[in-house]
Amino acid sequence: MRTVDLIRKKRGGGSLTAGELSFLIEGYCQGDIPDYQMSAWAMAVFFRGMTAEETAELTLAMARSGDQVDLSSIRGIKVDKHSTGGVGDKTTLIVAPLVAACGIPVAKMSGRGLGHTGGTIDKLESMAGFRTELSREQFFAQVNDIGIAVIGQSGNITPADKKLYALRDVTATVESIPLIASSVMSKKIAAGADAIVLDVKTGSGAFMKSLEESEALAAAMVEIGSQVGRQTAALISDMDQPLGYAIGNALEVEEAIAVLQGQGPRDLLELCLALSAHMVVLGGQADNLEAAEKLLRAKLESGAALEKFRAFVAAQGGDPAVADNPGLLSKAPEIINVTAQQDGFVQQIDAEQLGLAAMLLGAGRAAKEDEIDHAVGLMLKRKVGDSVKTGDTIAQLHARDRSPSVSEVAQRVLAAYTIGGQDQPTRKPLLLSVVTSDGIKRSEA
Amino acid sequence: MRTVDLIRKKRGGGSLTAGELSFLIEGYCQGDIPDYQMSAWAMAVFFRGMTAEETAELTLAMARSGDQVDLSSIRGIKVDKHSTGGVGDKTTLIVAPLVAACGIPVAKMSGRGLGHTGGTIDKLESMAGFRTELSREQFFAQVNDIGIAVIGQSGNITPADKKLYALRDVTATVESIPLIASSVMSKKIAAGADAIVLDVKTGSGAFMKSLEESEALAAAMVEIGSQVGRQTAALISDMDQPLGYAIGNALEVEEAIAVLQGQGPRDLLELCLALSAHMVVLGGQADNLEAAEKLLRAKLESGAALEKFRAFVAAQGGDPAVADNPGLLSKAPEIINVTAQQDGFVQQIDAEQLGLAAMLLGAGRAAKEDEIDHAVGLMLKRKVGDSVKTGDTIAQLHARDRSPSVSEVAQRVLAAYTIGGQDQPTRKPLLLSVVTSDGIKRSEA
Repeated sequence: MRTVDLIRKKRGGGSLTAGELSFLIEGYCQGDIPDYQMSAWAMAVFFRGMTAEETAELTLAMARSGDQVDLSSIRGIKVDKHSTGGVGDKTTLIVAPLVAACGIPVAKMSGRGLGHTGGTIDKLESMAGFRTELSREQFFAQVNDIGIAVIGQSGNITPADKKLYALRDVTATVESIPLIASSVMSKKIAAGADAIVLDVKTGSGAFMKSLEESEALAAAMVEIGSQVGRQTAALISDMDQPLGYAIGNALEVEEAIAVLQGQGPRDLLELCLALSAHMVVLGGQADNLEAAEKLLRAKLESGAALEKFRAFVAAQGGDPAVADNPGLLSKAPEIINVTAQQDGFVQQIDAEQLGLAAMLLGAGRAAKEDEIDHAVGLMLKRKVGDSVKTGDTIAQLHARDRSPSVSEVAQRVLAAYTIGGQDQPTRKPLLLSVVTSDGIKRSEA
Repeated sequence: MRTVDLIRKKRGGGSLTAGELSFLIEGYCQGDIPDYQMSAWAMAVFFRGMTAEETAELTLAMARSGDQVDLSSIRGIKVDKHSTGGVGDKTTLIVAPLVAACGIPVAKMSGRGLGHTGGTIDKLESMAGFRTELSREQFFAQVNDIGIAVIGQSGNITPADKKLYALRDVTATVESIPLIASSVMSKKIAAGADAIVLDVKTGSGAFMKSLEESEALAAAMVEIGSQVGRQTAALISDMDQPLGYAIGNALEVEEAIAVLQGQGPRDLLELCLALSAHMVVLGGQADNLEAAEKLLRAKLESGAALEKFRAFVAAQGGDPAVADNPGLLSKAPEIINVTAQQDGFVQQIDAEQLGLAAMLLGAGRAAKEDEIDHAVGLMLKRKVGDSVKTGDTIAQLHARDRSPSVSEVAQRVLAAYTIGGQDQPTRKPLLLSVVTSDGIKRSEA
């Protein structure tokens, strides 16, 4: 088998076989196939696409390229959740204890933030003492013991995907649905999930800007799940504005706790309930979504979800008292108000710009090796559809100081808001579409 | 400027500017842009093509990447000829002295053979003592003195093209018309030609298998010539069977001499006259093709072309007596007949297979570093349309020995002939199309 022939086959619109894709991925991982052949293949895939079978085989080949976590020592159906990345997305902090309280074992590996999006591991680490590095044995034991553990990605999960993604990033071959779908799904499969619920973000703050693209990506991932025998469902949610009001690590933990306490923003609660309901159904703890949601609401109201959060924090070295007193979280010394310069309604909020603003305050990383500041971030005071008067605080910066660079960030936050108009804009639904193996179901507007 | 953005622009169907293409080619040459980005760009070009302006700018950027030969010290309009490579193609050996005899200065750099096609430099070196390495000063002085010099490519001509071509070869990005056209034309422009006549081969023995593809390639090269101010004409000639009867270095020199002597195969003479006529017109030595052809025929009949060949061989260290006595060329010790196994007409000859057969005898190189044997090769005895009877010799192997591997080559030669049928197949014209800045003119069938 010659790599150049496989590239030519794809270039001509052919489909590579399982054997051919294994040859490519194994050869690439071992260094036998150079970057310049993989990038040419990736560009051919960009133009020619891949069949469902091809995409599934590529996913499996990448999943096989490194460690494959065996979760069989954990009792029950392991349902993983994955978000394609948004701004202010703290759903894992809520969903994980909530579904664990329903009896779904949560054995989750999460990532760190980069660029305008945050990462669950960084958010967890904003709780003093919280450890995100556990041995495989500790990890399994904790899940069997209290039903939940969340750790950083350890070991050598899908090195082929890491290497290929880094190459795609510099060769303009990121934006290919089969390549994105196989990248996401290979990690979930290698991480050992029996079933997967995907939170696909769409809109200005998301990687996929249109609903159609997001649905196509979701459908490709659900199809991979079907092909490889891991039941998968995808929810498509709006990321035209940030989720909830908090952006920044400790601020987001505080907001997540509020939701678990039965308070917190409505949009965040709605998305968490929807994701959790799919997880509870796939995990066999409810027969249908209605029953699942009823169970979930009961776990919130009874305090069982918050109690699971306490146990989770305690087990991983944090102070469980934070669940009742978020004042224990580290606080930024300066709070700077960003005020409206005109009257009107908030028409738009550029989520990506707010993510970058939080990053610039220190809440995120411009480069992988950057240190982050857990205390800093943004608290939004107005969201799309809210009315504002000149001088109203629309957002607050939680900052380390009042330096000129912080003032620049304040300007950036102000610029991310579009305010104006006599009429209140219609609020878009947060949940736009559900994609399962039965097809795509758009929400009624 | 970021390379990834240029790849993305091309991927989306955009056109790169002159500055962007210079950035790419210079960066690639200097090692600042890695292979994996260039191969992704090349694949994007394969799918998206390039505009005429883009192709011309790429050509100029590649021409600038190394030495640019300044032929201004040579008097007259320098007209170069280039063949896209065929089997049995010895036209340069004939055309160069023929047009030189008409007053066109021939200052030509030629290449060596690889794979199934031969190279002019190898053919010239089959004359004992012939030197193909001259200093730049010797080269110019010889052209000013006797009107002709042919040397191997020396110095550092279009290193960007060499590097890019090697990359395209292993990334399935060779078959892109703008990339092929810019590769050819960059070398001709760097070599200093004022005007260029291209011999584009089409058919089973050529890189371009269909007339339409060949015309598209020719048109792209003629357009580059227009864009960069070097008048260019292209002839498209049939390479469904070898040109003439001889394949192999000394054998081809002998056949070329026969043409210069006013003998030799009709197809070869026809193509040489057509190419030469365009060169004579572009070089300003005749007002139109008819006048040019009359002049050329006169130079053949008077012996002036053969005399120019003698002077050329003598100037570069060979024995001019070879022009009158080809017996002075080295001869292979063994001549092995390949005989027809059935009656009928020759329907087809696979030129590429015969080129490979000659290579296997030692006349060509499988790899760049291989040594070649100047004496060996093939002499065809029958061509398409000829009638044969069982037992007739259809071709002769000129071989170093009678080893089993030579017998295998004989089988390969036999297999390259398709013989059969009651009816003589219609002979295709050799010259199929002429492409100039005025457009494409197909020959009347």
